Amino acid sequence: MAQIAYVNGRYVPLRDANVHIEDRGYQFADGIYEVCLVIDGAFWDLEGHLARMERSLGELDMPAPMSRAALLQTMKELIRRNRLRDALVYIQATRGVAARNHVFPPEGTPGGLVMTAKRFDLDGSDAIAETGVRVISHPDIRWGRVDIKSVSLLPNVLAKQAAKEAGAAEAWLTCDDVVTEGSSSNAWIVDSDGTLITHPKGNHILGGITRETALACAAELQMRVEERPFTLVEARAAAEAFITSATNLVTPVIAVDDAAIGDGKPGPVSRRLREAYKLRARGLRA
Amino acid sequence: MAQIAYVNGRYVPLRDANVHIEDRGYQFADGIYEVCLVIDGAFWDLEGHLARMERSLGELDMPAPMSRAALLQTMKELIRRNRLRDALVYIQATRGVAARNHVFPPEGTPGGLVMTAKRFDLDGSDAIAETGVRVISHPDIRWGRVDIKSVSLLPNVLAKQAAKEAGAAEAWLTCDDVVTEGSSSNAWIVDSDGTLITHPKGNHILGGITRETALACAAELQMRVEERPFTLVEARAAAEAFITSATNLVTPVIAVDDAAIGDGKPGPVSRRLREAYKLRARGLRA
Repeated sequence: MAQIAYVNGRYVPLRDANVHIEDRGYQFADGIYEVCLVIDGAFWDLEGHLARMERSLGELDMPAPMSRAALLQTMKELIRRNRLRDALVYIQATRGVAARNHVFPPEGTPGGLVMTAKRFDLDGSDAIAETGVRVISHPDIRWGRVDIKSVSLLPNVLAKQAAKEAGAAEAWLTCDDVVTEGSSSNAWIVDSDGTLITHPKGNHILGGITRETALACAAELQMRVEERPFTLVEARAAAEAFITSATNLVTPVIAVDDAAIGDGKPGPVSRRLREAYKLRARGLRA
Repeated sequence: MAQIAYVNGRYVPLRDANVHIEDRGYQFADGIYEVCLVIDGAFWDLEGHLARMERSLGELDMPAPMSRAALLQTMKELIRRNRLRDALVYIQATRGVAARNHVFPPEGTPGGLVMTAKRFDLDGSDAIAETGVRVISHPDIRWGRVDIKSVSLLPNVLAKQAAKEAGAAEAWLTCDDVVTEGSSSNAWIVDSDGTLITHPKGNHILGGITRETALACAAELQMRVEERPFTLVEARAAAEAFITSATNLVTPVIAVDDAAIGDGKPGPVSRRLREAYKLRARGLRA
């Protein structure tokens, strides 16, 4: 069955899913996005994603493309048409189509809204998590408002590609030796006392929804957590490290650049947190 | 006559000019652009634009969408089909279409190429230049590689909109009190000795083609020029100020925030430079 996409009011086969060349998303990166999961037929962390999407729109003075209720209805219809029970839903909203000009389009210009849905397997990253992944450090040269989940992702693309070319799965972005976050994930370390450390929210990181849920899981497991900036030096000396994102859940990191983390294998804290996260995603308790 | 656009190998009416929703330009701002002028039937500053485009592609490890000769041929054909003698040609190249993933698409993925052409009048900005424009200062929160002419323009959009809402034509971006450039133009001041000052090239500004030609005009007019960072304090105390861009040519600035520049009217240096620029664009000499 051909994958179906939603594009500005219509459900179309993915291969025919087009936007106008004067869509602000294409010409100006003037848009935002979300990636949500559906697990066992139910949205996961939906409130967090919708709230963040509304915040991103608000920070950019971008009108909501439709009401939250209509958006939810559209997401459900897209999942239904794609006959999915476990899905990754990509939502992109832009400031619509207008003759090219940096200033916002005229009042009343309809916003653009595009969605895709594809199969997602909550266990799909298990093999990778079992081995753990390597990360590289990379300069954080992104703009000053990365807390907005915009499609202005070119520096993230370049960082991720640099990681791939170095044989790593992710790039940890560093600013004055502080690790802010990964190119498409949040960065965590575990110190020798078993304390989890991750960069606090603010303008320097995107407030990850999976990060929030991982924090809740950590609290439930009575793990100590410090939300504070940590340096690359601390990271290289950490007992454990891991990344969190909607698609990778909690994934252990076994090396930062050329430094093995701990004994170079996924550590117990990261593994417990991943298990707890998956149980929670399935509506169960650790 | 309907405006004709060029989209990935086809000439289509602008209203039907679409790209796929998984074009990297739309989802990742993973693309670059140029804006070139055709004046009296001839390309203006073409070598500069093509060289910069090639540089932008190279800095992003993005393959050229076609050879320079083929690109030029396509530009000419687009202008011909639009029956234009004086035109503004917009060219956007992206890393093509691929299933959404931050890393570059698989080797061999064809790059995306889109062009539009519309009428341009070299005298079209004369009335505005006669009055002069106001600019506001605005924090420069762009990413670290603004020397690449990428479509990662969201901060520029927000700055330009802030200018518009303040009743100004442009935002001068400031970093540690230094004016780097405008949101879509280069920034210049003229000090009390008649010396022109503009930020040097490097990672902090986009090396404007019009900026280069304005430098050549200034040399021809035997004006003194210093390519060095200048502060907002210097700007507010300047004898004159102006902006340069392909569409605005040389346009006098009469106020920076609430400070009138000089006597609050376009100054003689800016006016002379604009005249020289226009003569040069028409193939004449000052």
